[in-house]
Amino acid sequence: MSEIASLLFANEAFYLAFRNRDFAGMDALWASQTDVSCIHPGWDSLDNREDVMASWRGILDNADSPPVESRGARAKVWNGAGLVICYELVEQNVLVATNVFVKEGAGWKMVHHQAGPCRVSPNGLGEEPEPISVQ
Amino acid sequence: MSEIASLLFANEAFYLAFRNRDFAGMDALWASQTDVSCIHPGWDSLDNREDVMASWRGILDNADSPPVESRGARAKVWNGAGLVICYELVEQNVLVATNVFVKEGAGWKMVHHQAGPCRVSPNGLGEEPEPISVQ
Repeated sequence: MSEIASLLFANEAFYLAFRNRDFAGMDALWASQTDVSCIHPGWDSLDNREDVMASWRGILDNADSPPVESRGARAKVWNGAGLVICYELVEQNVLVATNVFVKEGAGWKMVHHQAGPCRVSPNGLGEEPEPISVQ
Repeated sequence: MSEIASLLFANEAFYLAFRNRDFAGMDALWASQTDVSCIHPGWDSLDNREDVMASWRGILDNADSPPVESRGARAKVWNGAGLVICYELVEQNVLVATNVFVKEGAGWKMVHHQAGPCRVSPNGLGEEPEPISVQ
């Protein structure tokens, strides 16, 4: 699998854990050997792993949290760091996200996430997540 | 100068060009040897250098654009990539930004910017940009 394909795969795993309210999966895909940070929509920046994972625990444990699906992910890799930009479809709202990953061992791990509101129409995003091409 | 200090310096140069409506300075600090992307608050993602710089031309040429100051910048470096998270004080509104840089030659160049609304009070940010320590 190419670096870009494996990075998109890691990004999709993030949204899969999000959709499935899978805290263990979410915890495993965040980096553990370097600092992480997270900016949820409208929130202050969370700047350490304990605060970031506590925020995900709260979101994933909240039965009222709406489902989130990713759309249109685009990835870039520089040296040992990767960037994915994608839309997040949250019911009829569209957010846009910056997801940053680094390599820990053989795998990409998330080190930073920011999502914020976006003026894109949900009708323009297509019905299904874009396929991930494995090269 | 340490990698972290030079990364914070590049981040501050971005906000200096922003404040001074310095398009040439803004153009020079974005990467030219790799793809760049930019997510202005509420906008769709701009995914190529031509669109990103056209957006900055419009913002910097607009006399009604409010002044923007950075506060509380925090930087991290992985291999050849750097991440800066900071607040943006825009009149009495606070945004939070993700700024990603890579090395081109000896210098850090911006490859991605996302800013979005944040619930932090402007009164909590302090009066002056945090000093950049040169190590």
